[in-house]
Amino acid sequence: MLDGKGFQGPIGVFDSGVGGLTVVRALRRELPAEDIIYLGDTARVPYGGKSPRTVERYALACQQFLLDREVALVLVACNTVSATALPALAEASPVPVIGAVEPGAQVAVATTRNRHIGVIGTLATVRSGAYVRAITALEPTAKVSSLACPLLVPLAEEGWVDDEIASMVARRYLTQLFAADRELDTLVLGCTHYPLLGETLHRVATEVAGHPVAIVDSAVAMANAARRELARGRAAGSLPARGPAGPGRLDCYATDTSRLEELAPRFLGEAPSGFALVDL
Amino acid sequence: MLDGKGFQGPIGVFDSGVGGLTVVRALRRELPAEDIIYLGDTARVPYGGKSPRTVERYALACQQFLLDREVALVLVACNTVSATALPALAEASPVPVIGAVEPGAQVAVATTRNRHIGVIGTLATVRSGAYVRAITALEPTAKVSSLACPLLVPLAEEGWVDDEIASMVARRYLTQLFAADRELDTLVLGCTHYPLLGETLHRVATEVAGHPVAIVDSAVAMANAARRELARGRAAGSLPARGPAGPGRLDCYATDTSRLEELAPRFLGEAPSGFALVDL
Repeated sequence: MLDGKGFQGPIGVFDSGVGGLTVVRALRRELPAEDIIYLGDTARVPYGGKSPRTVERYALACQQFLLDREVALVLVACNTVSATALPALAEASPVPVIGAVEPGAQVAVATTRNRHIGVIGTLATVRSGAYVRAITALEPTAKVSSLACPLLVPLAEEGWVDDEIASMVARRYLTQLFAADRELDTLVLGCTHYPLLGETLHRVATEVAGHPVAIVDSAVAMANAARRELARGRAAGSLPARGPAGPGRLDCYATDTSRLEELAPRFLGEAPSGFALVDL
Repeated sequence: MLDGKGFQGPIGVFDSGVGGLTVVRALRRELPAEDIIYLGDTARVPYGGKSPRTVERYALACQQFLLDREVALVLVACNTVSATALPALAEASPVPVIGAVEPGAQVAVATTRNRHIGVIGTLATVRSGAYVRAITALEPTAKVSSLACPLLVPLAEEGWVDDEIASMVARRYLTQLFAADRELDTLVLGCTHYPLLGETLHRVATEVAGHPVAIVDSAVAMANAARRELARGRAAGSLPARGPAGPGRLDCYATDTSRLEELAPRFLGEAPSGFALVDL
């Protein structure tokens, strides 16, 4: 597929659930002409508490589903998968695979002024240490502090994102995080659900820190990485860039369809035309 | 197995995750001499947001794992499974299958003074309507109000069970529930995780209601149902009841072992001797 022909295919995005639709939302804003195939492994969500071996097995099945549909790129919207299974996915794919960790780490390093960076995510993402490795590979003098925040996913799904409970939960987690490093000036949202809580996290982080804290949204960082990769691939294959004609087609698949009608619009920012049920 | 011989085997308990250990805890208190095999499908937890078809498929695999180990009884600790897949499980099993819904419904009907009963649980349990059906089958004049409370599972797992956040979340959910019926005098905890929040839920329910509210713990209700079933089966097979010698053996299996060391003691009330990893 690296002959360039493949770069005319749709962008494939997968996630353990619906959270990856925040990545699709960012893609449709940044690359409106591109076709997108989304797969949410909603029957097995969340991956966050599972072992690396289990996560890798599930992720390979999701990626193969997209490759069978001749995607030009694979975006791994799930931070847990990106943190634990990216090498195996890249090895199994003939097209480029973009994870959530590397783009977020790049933006964090470009954003921080004092090289004190915080990362919040699921238990598996934090335990993997992937953000710490990615950030310090780019900026060896960075000091990275990270914390797992399991309550934030159900808060985002309930839509309790800007009220007193959201603020209290954010305050409890961020107080713990800033206790580890009072100088944090940049906070990476290392889970696709967290952008829904972005404003609350920004406000509470700044309040807890006593100084401004920049928020890095890894969904936006991934969309920008996809744009660079497509531009590079099409230039190499002498293929035209997609014009701004848009809107591209969006096809959504899920391994379980309950609650999608309620949740999908919250994460996607628009109502999807529907989800096809698939068994992996 | 209904010849009575099978009733000498261990009690099999399965759940989508670790929550079912609250049932094991109740069993070990009520039936200390019995051997117990526990299976937590922790690789695929939680079942709560999945479709009935998916839940049934996973549950049948869990039950088969226990049947292969010659259990005398199957206890379905997962309320979601009990609410959606019990007929299929009973059909596939040569030994009695006890779900979480029926025992809890019986205790609720025996407890209420005014026949106004509330039920809280996962989304799938509430959507299934299983508690409403089970309660009204026993007491046709009962008025049952139910509500899904997705935040309560991660609160229990974080161990944030008796603080301000737990109280606020409980208050938000229970205010919604009591708005549907101000006269509720009995509240069924329709999820194995909820007993950890039992005291907070009891206090907040009574405060929101303005009158005493009885809490029905379905883990305790299931242990009592298991005792009755074993006594019945052993009497039919002329087998001796187990003496109070104890303690019986507890063997734990899980499909994913991450976080078990942290979570299992919280739910079981003691440290398990370990979990064997299995693939279903």
